[in-house]
Amino acid sequence: LATNHGRGAKSDLQNAAQALGASVSAVEVAKFLDKKFQDLPSFQRAAFLVPSKGGLPGIDPALVRVDEECVYLVGNSLGLQPSRTRVLVSEELDKWAKWGVNGHFTGDRPWMPIDETVIQQSAAIVGAEKDEVAIMNSLTVNLHLLFVSFYRPEGSRNRIMYEASAFGSDYFAFESQARLHGLDPTKVLLPLNARTGEELLHTEDIVSAIQAAGDSLAVVCLGTVQYYTGQYFDVKAITEAAHAVGAMAIWDCAHAVGNVDLSLHEWGVDGACWCNYKYLNAGPGAIGGFFVHRKHLNKGLPLLAGWWGQKQAVRFNMEHSWDPEVDAGAWRLSNPPVLQTVSLLASLEIFSRTTMSELRGRSMLLTAYLELLIADLVGDQLSVITPECPSSRGCQLSLKFSEERSCLATFTALERRGIVVDHRKPNVIRVAPAPLYNSFHDVHKFCTALREALSEVAEPAAKRAKV
Amino acid sequence: LATNHGRGAKSDLQNAAQALGASVSAVEVAKFLDKKFQDLPSFQRAAFLVPSKGGLPGIDPALVRVDEECVYLVGNSLGLQPSRTRVLVSEELDKWAKWGVNGHFTGDRPWMPIDETVIQQSAAIVGAEKDEVAIMNSLTVNLHLLFVSFYRPEGSRNRIMYEASAFGSDYFAFESQARLHGLDPTKVLLPLNARTGEELLHTEDIVSAIQAAGDSLAVVCLGTVQYYTGQYFDVKAITEAAHAVGAMAIWDCAHAVGNVDLSLHEWGVDGACWCNYKYLNAGPGAIGGFFVHRKHLNKGLPLLAGWWGQKQAVRFNMEHSWDPEVDAGAWRLSNPPVLQTVSLLASLEIFSRTTMSELRGRSMLLTAYLELLIADLVGDQLSVITPECPSSRGCQLSLKFSEERSCLATFTALERRGIVVDHRKPNVIRVAPAPLYNSFHDVHKFCTALREALSEVAEPAAKRAKV
Ligand SMILES: Cc1ncc(COP(=O)(O)O)c(C=O)c1O
Ligand SMILES: Cc1ncc(COP(=O)(O)O)c(C=O)c1O
Repeated sequence: LATNHGRGAKSDLQNAAQALGASVSAVEVAKFLDKKFQDLPSFQRAAFLVPSKGGLPGIDPALVRVDEECVYLVGNSLGLQPSRTRVLVSEELDKWAKWGVNGHFTGDRPWMPIDETVIQQSAAIVGAEKDEVAIMNSLTVNLHLLFVSFYRPEGSRNRIMYEASAFGSDYFAFESQARLHGLDPTKVLLPLNARTGEELLHTEDIVSAIQAAGDSLAVVCLGTVQYYTGQYFDVKAITEAAHAVGAMAIWDCAHAVGNVDLSLHEWGVDGACWCNYKYLNAGPGAIGGFFVHRKHLNKGLPLLAGWWGQKQAVRFNMEHSWDPEVDAGAWRLSNPPVLQTVSLLASLEIFSRTTMSELRGRSMLLTAYLELLIADLVGDQLSVITPECPSSRGCQLSLKFSEERSCLATFTALERRGIVVDHRKPNVIRVAPAPLYNSFHDVHKFCTALREALSEVAEPAAKRAKV
Repeated sequence: LATNHGRGAKSDLQNAAQALGASVSAVEVAKFLDKKFQDLPSFQRAAFLVPSKGGLPGIDPALVRVDEECVYLVGNSLGLQPSRTRVLVSEELDKWAKWGVNGHFTGDRPWMPIDETVIQQSAAIVGAEKDEVAIMNSLTVNLHLLFVSFYRPEGSRNRIMYEASAFGSDYFAFESQARLHGLDPTKVLLPLNARTGEELLHTEDIVSAIQAAGDSLAVVCLGTVQYYTGQYFDVKAITEAAHAVGAMAIWDCAHAVGNVDLSLHEWGVDGACWCNYKYLNAGPGAIGGFFVHRKHLNKGLPLLAGWWGQKQAVRFNMEHSWDPEVDAGAWRLSNPPVLQTVSLLASLEIFSRTTMSELRGRSMLLTAYLELLIADLVGDQLSVITPECPSSRGCQLSLKFSEERSCLATFTALERRGIVVDHRKPNVIRVAPAPLYNSFHDVHKFCTALREALSEVAEPAAKRAKV
């Protein structure tokens, strides 16, 4: 499935329905697909705690069976909790209670090098070599650390290219990094705008903008999967275009990691950062991820230094001679946060049972199924702004409403039914079937509820129209 | 006790012993003192999990009662675990399991503003106003953030004054911050050296060095309580001296917070950072602390920006117009790490039962007691390098051995007896009775064990001498 850029997914689904003698929107199809794929390693729902509808805020007890699992389609915001998280967190609390400070060097998972437990699997998920990854801090902190190393304006090469609709935090990072170098953000920030009347960026437009900027360009930094539209950029082509004009390519992988199958190393990406609370399921405010390509390692790049970036063997000598690790660990500043690290470990253990390419295959089918089921709801009131081409999107579809009011009302109507999705101002509902734990039946339930919600929302208007 | 700069502590102890008709080193005196103070709010041992000797690595089962509580004198490295930590962490895992992403806005302690639960008490502990404190990141990251705001070299005002024996991480931060501005660290870093043959810095020497540096000085940054010697600098005098020459004063409070009674606001300190895993008992790799004086707030100081620094009301609008919080929260970059935050909260709940001045009073007595009990062990082989004057030190005493070998051997001999202290290269053992949970009996047990350890270590030498 992952071959063929996922373009076969829709017809596969239709063929399956035909073989069952059912319409593709029949619940039997969802059940059939779940049964067919439930034993594959890419489906790990049983390893997660799925909230019950009854416990959710905003539900209408008359509309839901309170003990039923909710339909959780918001792994793009906060992933579900692995059931092993509590076990691993508890083990660390036990160690602290039993050993005190000796936990730094004692036992199976000593704290001093505890981040080593999460490097290898993190690297596998982003398509990196082990020495290219550090797990530390949080996304925006890591983005700044990357800029300190890669954004080194010299003369007229000082521009930062970014999406005009970049996530706010990234924009503020760009702006403050420009100021850090005494530059005027309005002069050096170079936004990529969509064509008039369009939502998405065309790869060829990005590439020509890069070429046009030429040697004024210092850094290109985009969100790998756009948080609002769900567009998955062509990382390889854009990175190559940046390199061709002598610029660096930095990628914010917040919405990409654990969602699409990245190859940061192979694509020659210079630096990347991500958060682990979305598709990586490491919990609210989880520890961040950080990538520097091997070609930049051990080259004395400027960085913000701290004792933890030193080689382990000399780290505790307290000498004032900087002797950094030869890998991405050189960017580490502080001793690792233990509970945050094992919260990530609990999720990575689950990822280690499958591969990103298996997950991506499952994901393309799930999202194609979602797209098929809502096809007849799409029209003037509601459109899907996410790219149709499966290789240009991750699992998320962004539903755009023509009116903000009906967007919010639909969101609330879904909430009352125990459907958890998210609303982004002004008028988008994001729906993200996470391949690791969402089922075809989840998608089917969502679509049924969406249909109900839309007609509920339309009703008052229809009534008003009659008057 | 805290009045009189703690100078009365030793005679108070001696008077207490006399009233009991005992020598000050008699265990009855320890027991008497514990009984006398056990019900004061400054003694909260019952709120902590004290490891048993039997569970510790390195103990000799022949030398200890395995079920006895260990003597934990290393709160300057990793504080003990509050028993409420597990409860609070578990509550957050419950919320995540029950509510998923809705935990950001639901319940008593919603995640979105969860750092608010730890600001007020943190501010009280460092002597700050509420709006001057942010709880975020880790110490070294926060030190860099302070430097971005306060170290803004202009022309010849570009020097950073620091202790020649500064903690390694701080030194690397200074060096990399100089480089960030294209400056040569060897030209701008200005170390404060102790007088020849001395370990400690004299306030008057620091002040004259600041005056001599004059308007070449951009920033003075010291460790408030020196990690190695235990010296507590005169923050007020040094900060004033820095201001007098137009420099900024930044303080690393890692070893000061929860140990001494700070008044960061009153002293006019410009910026400060700390870690919460030492005297603050928030666990390995705990979240960091950050202070910016009110005089600098809401003044558009340069900073590394992120979405979380925006006012809550506009934070989720995703607009690209920076609208920062009016308090220290403007320096926040990312959404808060929930488990780390409640780990700190569990400890702050305990601190809220007492005050830093009560704790400081208890601490001065405890450390004076330690000093008294080891007085006769001090000599050629072993000296205390921490200042004798109670107002120039926190709770820690640093024992310096003339030989590295005997230092290590003593450390091991203490470890075998279930005494947890720490060793710092090359030849110092740091002993830190944390006032919040250490008892006089702990100190007494340590001294008894130290006596045994020293004679055990001396024995082979004595035997060698005989041959
Ligand atoms: C005085 C001092 N400064 C800085 C640090 C570095 O702390 P972190 O690893 O939390 O950044 C420490 C750690 O023990 C310290 O004691
Ligand atoms: C695309 C993107 N970038 C940056 C961030 C900011 O993340 P953090 O608060 O972890 O720094 C987010 C958070 O959702 C995001 O979605």
